[in-house]
Amino acid sequence: MSDGKVVNVAVAGATGYAGGEILRLLVGHPAYQAGNLRIGALTGASNAGEPVSELMPHLPELGDRVIEPTTVDVLDGHDVVFLGLPHGHSAKIGAALGEDDVVIDCAADFRLRDSHAWQRYYGSEHAGAWPYGLPELPGHREEVAASSRIAVPGCFPTGATLAAWPALRAGVVEPDLAIVAVTGVSGAGKKAKVEMLGAETMGSLKAYSVAGAHRHTPEIAQNLEEVAGRPVNVSFTPVLAPLPRGILTTVTAPLAEGADLKTVRGAYEQAYAEEPFVLLLPAGQQPQTQHVVGSNMCHLQVEVDEGARRVVATSAIDNLTKGTGGAAVQCMNLALGFDEGAGLSRAAVAP
Amino acid sequence: MSDGKVVNVAVAGATGYAGGEILRLLVGHPAYQAGNLRIGALTGASNAGEPVSELMPHLPELGDRVIEPTTVDVLDGHDVVFLGLPHGHSAKIGAALGEDDVVIDCAADFRLRDSHAWQRYYGSEHAGAWPYGLPELPGHREEVAASSRIAVPGCFPTGATLAAWPALRAGVVEPDLAIVAVTGVSGAGKKAKVEMLGAETMGSLKAYSVAGAHRHTPEIAQNLEEVAGRPVNVSFTPVLAPLPRGILTTVTAPLAEGADLKTVRGAYEQAYAEEPFVLLLPAGQQPQTQHVVGSNMCHLQVEVDEGARRVVATSAIDNLTKGTGGAAVQCMNLALGFDEGAGLSRAAVAP
Amino acid sequence: MSDGKVVNVAVAGATGYAGGEILRLLVGHPAYQAGNLRIGALTGASNAGEPVSELMPHLPELGDRVIEPTTVDVLDGHDVVFLGLPHGHSAKIGAALGEDDVVIDCAADFRLRDSHAWQRYYGSEHAGAWPYGLPELPGHREEVAASSRIAVPGCFPTGATLAAWPALRAGVVEPDLAIVAVTGVSGAGKKAKVEMLGAETMGSLKAYSVAGAHRHTPEIAQNLEEVAGRPVNVSFTPVLAPLPRGILTTVTAPLAEGADLKTVRGAYEQAYAEEPFVLLLPAGQQPQTQHVVGSNMCHLQVEVDEGARRVVATSAIDNLTKGTGGAAVQCMNLALGFDEGAGLSRAAVAP
Amino acid sequence: MSDGKVVNVAVAGATGYAGGEILRLLVGHPAYQAGNLRIGALTGASNAGEPVSELMPHLPELGDRVIEPTTVDVLDGHDVVFLGLPHGHSAKIGAALGEDDVVIDCAADFRLRDSHAWQRYYGSEHAGAWPYGLPELPGHREEVAASSRIAVPGCFPTGATLAAWPALRAGVVEPDLAIVAVTGVSGAGKKAKVEMLGAETMGSLKAYSVAGAHRHTPEIAQNLEEVAGRPVNVSFTPVLAPLPRGILTTVTAPLAEGADLKTVRGAYEQAYAEEPFVLLLPAGQQPQTQHVVGSNMCHLQVEVDEGARRVVATSAIDNLTKGTGGAAVQCMNLALGFDEGAGLSRAAVAP
Repeated sequence: MSDGKVVNVAVAGATGYAGGEILRLLVGHPAYQAGNLRIGALTGASNAGEPVSELMPHLPELGDRVIEPTTVDVLDGHDVVFLGLPHGHSAKIGAALGEDDVVIDCAADFRLRDSHAWQRYYGSEHAGAWPYGLPELPGHREEVAASSRIAVPGCFPTGATLAAWPALRAGVVEPDLAIVAVTGVSGAGKKAKVEMLGAETMGSLKAYSVAGAHRHTPEIAQNLEEVAGRPVNVSFTPVLAPLPRGILTTVTAPLAEGADLKTVRGAYEQAYAEEPFVLLLPAGQQPQTQHVVGSNMCHLQVEVDEGARRVVATSAIDNLTKGTGGAAVQCMNLALGFDEGAGLSRAAVAP
Repeated sequence: MSDGKVVNVAVAGATGYAGGEILRLLVGHPAYQAGNLRIGALTGASNAGEPVSELMPHLPELGDRVIEPTTVDVLDGHDVVFLGLPHGHSAKIGAALGEDDVVIDCAADFRLRDSHAWQRYYGSEHAGAWPYGLPELPGHREEVAASSRIAVPGCFPTGATLAAWPALRAGVVEPDLAIVAVTGVSGAGKKAKVEMLGAETMGSLKAYSVAGAHRHTPEIAQNLEEVAGRPVNVSFTPVLAPLPRGILTTVTAPLAEGADLKTVRGAYEQAYAEEPFVLLLPAGQQPQTQHVVGSNMCHLQVEVDEGARRVVATSAIDNLTKGTGGAAVQCMNLALGFDEGAGLSRAAVAP
Repeated sequence: MSDGKVVNVAVAGATGYAGGEILRLLVGHPAYQAGNLRIGALTGASNAGEPVSELMPHLPELGDRVIEPTTVDVLDGHDVVFLGLPHGHSAKIGAALGEDDVVIDCAADFRLRDSHAWQRYYGSEHAGAWPYGLPELPGHREEVAASSRIAVPGCFPTGATLAAWPALRAGVVEPDLAIVAVTGVSGAGKKAKVEMLGAETMGSLKAYSVAGAHRHTPEIAQNLEEVAGRPVNVSFTPVLAPLPRGILTTVTAPLAEGADLKTVRGAYEQAYAEEPFVLLLPAGQQPQTQHVVGSNMCHLQVEVDEGARRVVATSAIDNLTKGTGGAAVQCMNLALGFDEGAGLSRAAVAP
Repeated sequence: MSDGKVVNVAVAGATGYAGGEILRLLVGHPAYQAGNLRIGALTGASNAGEPVSELMPHLPELGDRVIEPTTVDVLDGHDVVFLGLPHGHSAKIGAALGEDDVVIDCAADFRLRDSHAWQRYYGSEHAGAWPYGLPELPGHREEVAASSRIAVPGCFPTGATLAAWPALRAGVVEPDLAIVAVTGVSGAGKKAKVEMLGAETMGSLKAYSVAGAHRHTPEIAQNLEEVAGRPVNVSFTPVLAPLPRGILTTVTAPLAEGADLKTVRGAYEQAYAEEPFVLLLPAGQQPQTQHVVGSNMCHLQVEVDEGARRVVATSAIDNLTKGTGGAAVQCMNLALGFDEGAGLSRAAVAP
């Protein structure tokens, strides 16, 4: 589709945070600015009929648009359809769209390959699995580029997987991981809930969905087991912190017999030498979410705790960019044959 | 210079917040990406000799650079020199640079035309005045486009001037303004001070430099008197609030005899009908700084308080973008004959 | 009631922010700790039947309590009933409670004496006016002490009135005020709304209810006109900022003929010389909301802008303490003959 | 000393955050309010000679005081001396004070019993060890009550130890702990540093001193090994988050053979049944730092991750209260024979 034809793109769930981030990136995309990418239908549920100028004043480019209802009729026929819908809805809409459309789903519906895991965590029927859109995971870039159905990873699995897989593949850690990920509040979405009010979240920290209860747990395990080629024990604890965007993930695991800082660091250097959106920081420098806000980057560091005999890997992403909307656009670029990084910034809005 | 020649750009004070913002915008500038703009010397004071990878990890594109000392020797000979220096320093460096260089100064040194005002507020000798880089102020776009010396406006004067001048020009308010501007903490710069620590600023609000003591006061008055063609009384109160970026300015002034909501709103519609970076919001919708973070936009609203017989205008800008670095790049674009909006986003990183 | 009898206190709307703050102060009240004050019924609407341990874990002292429904039956018969209810509800419950109960209402229902102002701003029938519980306003301490029905002031009127009345009484300003008050998010209450989500409020500033639309406007005017003895023009603009608690109010007004810094400052010194909960800061020091968090204090400063010929007064309060719950307890103390400051801290939780 | 004699208390390092918190608690202490406790010398280093009214406006009670220099002469002779000094300074001053004074040190100097650990982490000579002031740790309450030299625990060790020791003592976990603690910014103290500026910390998260580099690591291990009676492997990762106060600690460890949720939860119920300042939350409810701000409480939860076979314990404290100043006052109460909870709140300033 990079042959000059204008690509027509729809965004379902456009007024949510995932949809809004996709739109922010699309209006800055070189194909859009060159007139080769057109933003078609923008859909919503409760907001259908309302103007974008009121719902998303941060996107003046689209200020004259009106939100349409999220139906197959409205969405079908676009070259690309991004789905920023609650899980369950994605499965239905995704299954009904024509085969010629490239469908990029930001919900969980098509991420898990194990239907038992799906049912345990989501309690509904499994819709199946699509190619998993984490191009930095071995083999996935190629799979995404060849596909017209893509499941965008969850935000926590993105930060945790990028921090952990090189060590597992290289065998420098035991496959027994303790992962704690601290997240900004936009990850909870744009739905009104008392516990997500500013007054409840500013000036406060809390863990939630602990002890394996978070739905991203099996997705993290799936990614890591795929790379490790064996079972990986994953203890995952999310913590909510008072900032709008950003996830800081800490992964610790026992240092494997025979491994040391050099082999550990080497595993990451090798894994990410060519990756445009992963930056292994200079030794001694820890990632900071501020340095990736609005960018599609994942900043990483890895150290060895000699006393505790554990590897400590840390990563920072923007949950809405590399964690959702940026990954979605990156996948679109691959699927359409655009430059993988088109419209995606490596520079962040800091401070 | 838009004839294919590569423009060589230096940034003095590159590691401060103004310098960092200019660099963030330059690496996303289409001329840079097309190879027509080169980022040359990056200079600093205490940071000279240190790598950009450590000082500004949010700019991986420039990660292999090293900060040079801020001297005329290092800076001279570039086609464009941005100065992100403390006031005083700018005057010296600015005066010493060659006439062929385009010099764009983000400090206050060359903003005020009244040397008495300069001396009263800055206590040093007046360096003179350069064309004032607020293209949205009548006559200034043309002046900037024709100049190789440009004084970038202060962040508070930008928000206040854009909120107020249309009403003054149209004569719909009395020239007696009460301005209160609430700002994020990056406006104070990157210098270590106890009162700007996170623990002192998070969860707190305070006014400062009240009662006309803030150095931006005479700059606001200069802008507004220029448009109004008569003295304008300006009461200016800045308030510090716990967010990194953003200024929310409220301007109130007595409604002029014979004016009403229609003539007031008309004044703003006319003033900004063609401005790419000013958005007068739909009636009833207030600007929010979140909707301009990282963008070069100024969002505006104006209402009439029938009870108090006052006009209430409000504006939101990102103090580092439209308030500093974005304005600087906008001025560069004009001075070099680039598209005025090149490299400047109208979409913001929200939430 | 300070004769040894145990005072039985109920809180209606106990799970809201006003109710929670009243309870926080009551459990630290010396009468409670001495066994002379008993916390009786705690009521709520949607939360009735739920345990305090889940709803307000920050009050372990009351962890074994269960929320009861807000009915006259449940509330009547207590010696003191605090009402932390939405306006409208307060009027109904307040009117139905027995005459022997001391009723302290934190809603707006009984604050305004002008029924036209009530109807214009609230659109319902006026319930009447109760003694207004701002003991620092001339005459009110005595009125409150003699009353069994008290209307607690709104948070914005508290900050604005305390900042302005001394200047008006002394005649050192013209009665034409521009007031801008920046507030933390708890002022919006504990109801789920999209625009009050953490992701919408952190990192953002916005004005709202501008141009006289805020319901606290007539209350501010009522207070100031009462002191000034003549009409006072009030332009009031609230701004929402990303912090949980705190209001920073700026009041500017034209300096009256013949007044100067000395007479202005003298007016405030005289007004507040004996007030335990108002602190006029040393000259040159601006109030900061952090310094009053959790305390019942109002910190104040006043300056004269010689250039603009305006007085600039600023105040900082905690909107939930001096702005609501602390004022309510202060009024209870007066009404019951307790020490006025009992259970109220002058020290704040800073930083 | 509870026999009516007035206790004279000095605070060294009074203008730092630890000192300020101790003073906030002292002015609310019933002994102070009854005239039985007198606040004597307040000392500082760079602030000596400056008035408290400017340095700590949140303590109006002490507004007429002036900071004295931190010398043995100034401090000696008080009944109680709190030391809120940088480590190293505490050791010197502490050693020089008279034996009759009760000395309560908030620095690290006297916390570690292992001089090798001290030298490895602090690089200076070991000053020795004093009774460790965590009354909730078995045996320590009695030790503190009998002592006139007390080392107040570090903030991270407090949160981590309280979350972990019951499981270790009961043998329901393997002694191999992964601890991640997310902290507010006041923990870094009141010293001006660029990386602790508001603009650098708001809207950002970062890990620091990872891989065992944090000086609190050996202190955590010391506490846990003392209870477990065997070596405990501790991997400790602190994360900095944008809030003023609060630490949220997550501790995970492999579930021991034969242990289950019931035995795990039982271990915590038994450990804390009588503790006034530790609250094991109802099952399913996670601790939140907001619910302990300004209080001396530690809120706790513990769960079992059946999938990962790990115990997950979480705790929330206010780093300045239970994490520093509150613990110091609690120790003073014990050492002087006051009620242990005097002047310490169980209710928090929330939201």
